Amino acid sequence: METVAKQDPVVSLETSPDRYRHWKLTFDGAIATLSMDVQEDAGLSPDYRLKLNSYDLGVDIELADAVQRIRFEHPKIHAVVITSLKERVFCAGANIFMLRGSSHAWKVNFCKYTNETRLAIEDASAHSGLKFLAALNGICAGGGYELALACDEIDLVDDGNSAVSLPETPLLGVLPGTGGLTRVVDKRKVRRDLADVFGTVAEGIKGRRAVEWRLVDAVYPTSQFKDRVAERARALAALSDRPAEGPGIRLGPLNPAVTSNMLRYSAVRLDIDRGKRVATLTLSAPEHDEPSDPAGILEAGDRFWALRAFRELDDCLLRLRLDEPLIGTVVVKTEGDAANVLAVDRTLLANADHWLVREIVHFIKRTLKRMDLTSRSFFALIEPGSCFAGTLFELAIACDRSYMLNDPDRPSAISLSGMNGGPLTMSNGLTRLESRFLGEADRVGELLAQTEPFDAEAALERGLVTFAPDELDWDDEVRLAVEGRAAFSPDALTGMEANLRFAGPETMETKIFGRLTAWQNWIFQRPNAVGEKGALTSYGLQGRPEFDFRRT
Amino acid sequence: METVAKQDPVVSLETSPDRYRHWKLTFDGAIATLSMDVQEDAGLSPDYRLKLNSYDLGVDIELADAVQRIRFEHPKIHAVVITSLKERVFCAGANIFMLRGSSHAWKVNFCKYTNETRLAIEDASAHSGLKFLAALNGICAGGGYELALACDEIDLVDDGNSAVSLPETPLLGVLPGTGGLTRVVDKRKVRRDLADVFGTVAEGIKGRRAVEWRLVDAVYPTSQFKDRVAERARALAALSDRPAEGPGIRLGPLNPAVTSNMLRYSAVRLDIDRGKRVATLTLSAPEHDEPSDPAGILEAGDRFWALRAFRELDDCLLRLRLDEPLIGTVVVKTEGDAANVLAVDRTLLANADHWLVREIVHFIKRTLKRMDLTSRSFFALIEPGSCFAGTLFELAIACDRSYMLNDPDRPSAISLSGMNGGPLTMSNGLTRLESRFLGEADRVGELLAQTEPFDAEAALERGLVTFAPDELDWDDEVRLAVEGRAAFSPDALTGMEANLRFAGPETMETKIFGRLTAWQNWIFQRPNAVGEKGALTSYGLQGRPEFDFRRT
Repeated sequence: METVAKQDPVVSLETSPDRYRHWKLTFDGAIATLSMDVQEDAGLSPDYRLKLNSYDLGVDIELADAVQRIRFEHPKIHAVVITSLKERVFCAGANIFMLRGSSHAWKVNFCKYTNETRLAIEDASAHSGLKFLAALNGICAGGGYELALACDEIDLVDDGNSAVSLPETPLLGVLPGTGGLTRVVDKRKVRRDLADVFGTVAEGIKGRRAVEWRLVDAVYPTSQFKDRVAERARALAALSDRPAEGPGIRLGPLNPAVTSNMLRYSAVRLDIDRGKRVATLTLSAPEHDEPSDPAGILEAGDRFWALRAFRELDDCLLRLRLDEPLIGTVVVKTEGDAANVLAVDRTLLANADHWLVREIVHFIKRTLKRMDLTSRSFFALIEPGSCFAGTLFELAIACDRSYMLNDPDRPSAISLSGMNGGPLTMSNGLTRLESRFLGEADRVGELLAQTEPFDAEAALERGLVTFAPDELDWDDEVRLAVEGRAAFSPDALTGMEANLRFAGPETMETKIFGRLTAWQNWIFQRPNAVGEKGALTSYGLQGRPEFDFRRT
Repeated sequence: METVAKQDPVVSLETSPDRYRHWKLTFDGAIATLSMDVQEDAGLSPDYRLKLNSYDLGVDIELADAVQRIRFEHPKIHAVVITSLKERVFCAGANIFMLRGSSHAWKVNFCKYTNETRLAIEDASAHSGLKFLAALNGICAGGGYELALACDEIDLVDDGNSAVSLPETPLLGVLPGTGGLTRVVDKRKVRRDLADVFGTVAEGIKGRRAVEWRLVDAVYPTSQFKDRVAERARALAALSDRPAEGPGIRLGPLNPAVTSNMLRYSAVRLDIDRGKRVATLTLSAPEHDEPSDPAGILEAGDRFWALRAFRELDDCLLRLRLDEPLIGTVVVKTEGDAANVLAVDRTLLANADHWLVREIVHFIKRTLKRMDLTSRSFFALIEPGSCFAGTLFELAIACDRSYMLNDPDRPSAISLSGMNGGPLTMSNGLTRLESRFLGEADRVGELLAQTEPFDAEAALERGLVTFAPDELDWDDEVRLAVEGRAAFSPDALTGMEANLRFAGPETMETKIFGRLTAWQNWIFQRPNAVGEKGALTSYGLQGRPEFDFRRT
């Protein structure tokens, strides 16, 4: 196993179409086409070349950005065709030389992010009426096929050569790391024995057999491919309930102020204490009246607090993951006027059918899921002046635990809103309150029915917070909890949190992050993959991998 | 990470109460008491001492044997009290020094077996009316508490000292490896933030708080403990639908013939080809008329084919796991008269309500689950003279894939029976046919409605087999498949199979084996656990563990 801290590249998470190096985004009526055209020499590191539309994190950041912008900036787009501009190649998957040269943590973070991007595509289809068609105009291997699996439909050119494949097991000794195995059997319902064959045939499956096995939806001869894809894209677009006309909003740059110990956005701040390996994440309530109808929200655009604050939180969480591996615990705080948060919640709920409000709510949902899936310990501190109300209370129950100051002289409060009662589901398909009180639907209903704020004693009694120390104990109790956490094995904490955060039902999404990811992480540190003679290490070099064939 | 092949102990999987060294099994009316009294110096290896009722695989083999024998040998037992004979100690969990000295593969196999034992306890409660009460008369840590979690009720003595705990994360830098985290939140529905606290407090939780947090069902003062436990055991026994009277059957020794390349039982044979890393597992149909009513089955006892063949298969699978790590692929065959298998199936189905038939069917189910959870590739070969019918057809669809010879001159056949339609559920709660044809209930119904055997073409067409090569291709196709499999990374195969075998719904059981186990396996090879300064390595020695605190 590699134990040396390798130098992973520094990444910018923000981009925009005018800066894309690997994708072309074009529009034609209700159809957008997102064409992969990876620039070989524009990887995040000069150590590898992105041949054959293989990708690294930089390529995926552009893809995620494009999907996000289509949702917000182009509401009249109803379907997206994902295809390639390379001759006879759709996508060769994640770049092997990038994986080989990356630290274990980087591989894990890379897979997590790419999984989130593919789930965002499925989220857009399921919840925003934006349909996706993978038009596979050439070979489609590994992560390339996993991207196709995230689409609503997969059409493959039937040219006698182009195949879909998951060659990870036979060629690299690892798993398809972006949900491939799960989506093959659970989403596309490929029979498990055929999936077993598919997962071991490096050259993949093409033509009619690919359709018979359900790996793709249709194959078309080269001469017809373009027309049939266009036809199918129109059919998918017709399923959409997005607006026929009208402008979107522009997602401008976030421009955080960055110092060595701080990351400051307009409504989000991260203060880093490297000595203690603790960061404090603070979200601020809206400071003034936010728009209360769709016209006002459209006009405010990306300055609307609900969108702005969660775009900032999303960026902050990703920077934390990639740039701050040593920060093990995040103390979560809020500040400002809870009434302003609740007013925004009312606006979001009252206008839930408006396309932009819908996008904002689903974006908040996805950002909170990103938090659930971030392998750091989160502790909420609920103090006087905080505003854990409605949508912001979700932050508290996304945390591993919460502390609320019980001081009658300086009261703290929690409020619930309809935003806690439905829209912000977790990966397991339940709301955070439903997950918290598993199998106690009545209790959740009673809590949601209370319109008054909960003080510390009520919050403790009703199970909304973990602990409610009084003013004499507060400092010590919080300090000991945070210090204690920092002393534990970071790996055990990651495993514990990954298991405790998702009680209750499992979904394809939790299977991907729970089951598949955990196995992939296991394999990613096995000598058979990353040892000196491991398959990932020796791929593309002379000589074959050498395995320790003992089964575990 | 440890890469040296450590010497793991050789284990005998068969035992019986007269040979137990660590448990006392006593009976009083409808209540059995299973008392843990681990003999310190009787571990499987002399390298560690089993202090404070800590356990190794040998202790768990006795526990599994006791549960199994109560089910078959003592039908009038309706409830089991699990307690300890040690003063002020219930059980300290898996022995740390054993874990430290074990290879990665041994740790994984140990956890898998102990998980299966606990799931067998829950299976006995859910399906055999045998209820379990954990009477915690002293400290109960780690795997000890996980054993309690598998019981229907947990009663803890309230002596000011005895607590339940999962100290793995704070003390050892690993996870509770036997379902603890999953059962805490999913079975007992402990709130996730309280579970987070519980999972980090090495000294555990005791007294009233343990009840309030749902970690235990009741606490009783020392003076009342014995009486209240007896009372609760009677109440649990009253829930049972097991017979009030009547003898059980004796489970005799299996006595396989063992050579270096073969393991031969009466109805099961394993032929090992070490050069190819392939074993051939052959099950034989009954050779003569088997009993067809409960009286006859009772009289035949452990010689009844259905019980005998699957007890042998169970033992064979466990020996394969523990003794033959280098065998990566198992070719599964059957031989004999399918009519005899189907006749036994009819008997099992017609007498499903009889306690012994019920036990046999659930035992077959558990054995097939053991196969699903065995990390080897299974390929079924369906040839002339085979008898993949009813219950034995489950073997074919438990396999990762199947090959059926299509030779009209030497026909092969597959038959289904009611045993394929319900009783033999997988860990995901579905039958193997339901899992195979996920979401196609009609198709499963149509297949089950066919009383005629399926020939190779029909079986291929209907999706019951993966491939049906003709006689010209057969030898090459099978040989290439088996040889190809042997060349792949064993770890990637384990991960791939663990993901493809369990499509569809998730249950607590699949969560334990999929999510929790995968994370534990990951952690079990991280330097923070098993490296020179890792927590598992340094536990009990001078000095504290040293962690690489980067979060992954």
